[in-house]
Amino acid sequence: MTNVEILQQLAVPADTKLVLLVLDGLGGLPGEESGRTELESARTPNLDRLARQHSVGLATPLIPGVTPGSAPAHLALFGYDAFRYPIGRGVLSAVGVGLDLQPADVATRVNFATMQDGVITDRRAGRIPTEEAERLCRALSAIKIEGVDITVKAEMQHRAVIVWRGEGLSAAVSDTDPQKTGAAPLPARALEPGAQRMADIVNRFVAEANRLLAGEPRANTILLRGFGRLPDIPKITDLYRLRAAVIAAYPMYRGLAKLVGMEELPAGETFKDQLESLKRAWHDYDYFFLHVKGTDAAGEDGDFARKAAVIEEVDGLLPELLALSPDVLVITGDHSTPSRLKAHSWHPVPVLLASRWARPNPWIEGFGESDAVRGSLGPIRSQDLMGLMLAHGLRLQKFGA
Amino acid sequence: MTNVEILQQLAVPADTKLVLLVLDGLGGLPGEESGRTELESARTPNLDRLARQHSVGLATPLIPGVTPGSAPAHLALFGYDAFRYPIGRGVLSAVGVGLDLQPADVATRVNFATMQDGVITDRRAGRIPTEEAERLCRALSAIKIEGVDITVKAEMQHRAVIVWRGEGLSAAVSDTDPQKTGAAPLPARALEPGAQRMADIVNRFVAEANRLLAGEPRANTILLRGFGRLPDIPKITDLYRLRAAVIAAYPMYRGLAKLVGMEELPAGETFKDQLESLKRAWHDYDYFFLHVKGTDAAGEDGDFARKAAVIEEVDGLLPELLALSPDVLVITGDHSTPSRLKAHSWHPVPVLLASRWARPNPWIEGFGESDAVRGSLGPIRSQDLMGLMLAHGLRLQKFGA
Repeated sequence: MTNVEILQQLAVPADTKLVLLVLDGLGGLPGEESGRTELESARTPNLDRLARQHSVGLATPLIPGVTPGSAPAHLALFGYDAFRYPIGRGVLSAVGVGLDLQPADVATRVNFATMQDGVITDRRAGRIPTEEAERLCRALSAIKIEGVDITVKAEMQHRAVIVWRGEGLSAAVSDTDPQKTGAAPLPARALEPGAQRMADIVNRFVAEANRLLAGEPRANTILLRGFGRLPDIPKITDLYRLRAAVIAAYPMYRGLAKLVGMEELPAGETFKDQLESLKRAWHDYDYFFLHVKGTDAAGEDGDFARKAAVIEEVDGLLPELLALSPDVLVITGDHSTPSRLKAHSWHPVPVLLASRWARPNPWIEGFGESDAVRGSLGPIRSQDLMGLMLAHGLRLQKFGA
Repeated sequence: MTNVEILQQLAVPADTKLVLLVLDGLGGLPGEESGRTELESARTPNLDRLARQHSVGLATPLIPGVTPGSAPAHLALFGYDAFRYPIGRGVLSAVGVGLDLQPADVATRVNFATMQDGVITDRRAGRIPTEEAERLCRALSAIKIEGVDITVKAEMQHRAVIVWRGEGLSAAVSDTDPQKTGAAPLPARALEPGAQRMADIVNRFVAEANRLLAGEPRANTILLRGFGRLPDIPKITDLYRLRAAVIAAYPMYRGLAKLVGMEELPAGETFKDQLESLKRAWHDYDYFFLHVKGTDAAGEDGDFARKAAVIEEVDGLLPELLALSPDVLVITGDHSTPSRLKAHSWHPVPVLLASRWARPNPWIEGFGESDAVRGSLGPIRSQDLMGLMLAHGLRLQKFGA
């Protein structure tokens, strides 16, 4: 029996509110001089007090050493075995831009690219502006192929997504992206016997697209990759018998949350806006997922100070969240994004679990990587947080007599 | 998907050097009076400084409570699920002495022993010198059995190995070693229907050996155990796309390392010799496994002070290793061998992981069992070290989008 199946068996409804606040890429590495991480350098009196009075721990996102992408890292926080539910780029993009993906649909990630004399000279078409991509997507929407309903939608800069809808389609088609410049785009190939028609459709679409884009100075072709379908993932709302909502400014995180059964609430532009949205919907849901992107973005830019500043901003507004008296509040990251690395990393992430039923760890200083490993939650896996949240919300029955 | 499969998918080559330094049986128990283990009693300024500035943790070799033999303990350190790849003693000895074992070959561990009036009086023939065993092996090499190509080779002291090559052989044959003195050697029995011919071959060989050795004062018989074939184990060089080398003085550890794809480098007699070998080969490999046997041997002898002295010797030479600036250096044991127990034990083993990307734990005193459990790596499994080494060597791609 998997952990999910065990929790599912035990989950019962209850009149408790659970909040998962994810500061994307929260975990860090110490600055060369201070010896303190971004989180440890930030002035966070509210987080520190909460950490001492409740439980902290250190969560490994997937398995030791493995750096997760955003999708598997969040699936783990929602309680899933992320390796069991690989989510293709096409699907992530489609749900991210808000397309209504159906189980039989196939989604594909698109790059606008530059081609000269039959070979790719720029796989990202000079990172054209999003508005430019939107114009080109409208042009491509004119392509009609019998028996297939094709939706082309711009994502960000040179990125777009295609959703293919119709009878007898297949996701078992190879990428057309050669993954390097100086090479010709690849023809889509069927990766299993039943996929030949889909490969033909894709190749016809690309040929039409090349004809339509021929006069464009930069984005005169498209590269397709990551053909895939929605994963058959059970919803947390069904598994754990709760009403769940997402408050996230970035489309991809909303998309991911909706995939697992959460309803989408307005997020506005700032963390303050997110809290306002949370207050308004407080009585309508049991589980809220709030996503803050700024920490990860600053980490990827290598901006230690800005990452600390985003954390301070959240800390400053924390009293507003606490005023709602959530029964369980978990504050953590989906993974680490140390400014020194300028990228996601494998390092485990500090977790704060605040609840009336949490075992306090008053011996720690505050919320930070060094203290987290010595906190009362100890080292855990991100996937275990869902069970701990349900438990502290008194939403799990006893197992066995 | 297993952890090995996940890491294999993500592994990429990189220009980084990884070093695994195993002090065999490193973990210990506190002395009755001092309250400090062998490692904690040893004067180790270099290890202590390294431990504080980088990460320490406490590794469980296999599963809690299970005492590992050398082979599974090392397989775990190389990243394998040791329970999946049982390796017989015969195979270990054969690869250890450098015999070219083929997949169809059967290997058997041999003890020269003393027999009197049909019963064993010494299972190790008074630990005869290796040269003596070599002479006896040459004598046994005269034994010819039709359809089988038999190689007999001395290992160390009373230990030797036989490799049986030919059509239709089997490893499903029982040991002839009664495992105690005062008992007669056992006849080899077929453990499955197809193995009768092999059992007959073995019994004929032992009879011939007894005839040839009859005049020997000490080693006048042989005891056979651990019939087995090469396990079908994937090589770390293929799995993780690295060039790997072993520097170990003891044949068995070299053999084990070669089984998983490492190339053998000269080890000399001392740790100093091993370091010289490491320096010479530094540019030719990505992953180096150095094995120090003295800690385990002292532990098995119950010699607390000698075990501490071996650790101090390694500590003293550590600056030479650090001068090579390995990107990742892991120092640990394959298991614990507490002097008080005079045997391998199940206790978890301190691990030191030094890397530019390690999370430091300046709050600890040094490298020791008590500090290890409070270090920034926390409690881990030995098997997880391979993923952590690859990660800190920036040799793993991100998982998922």
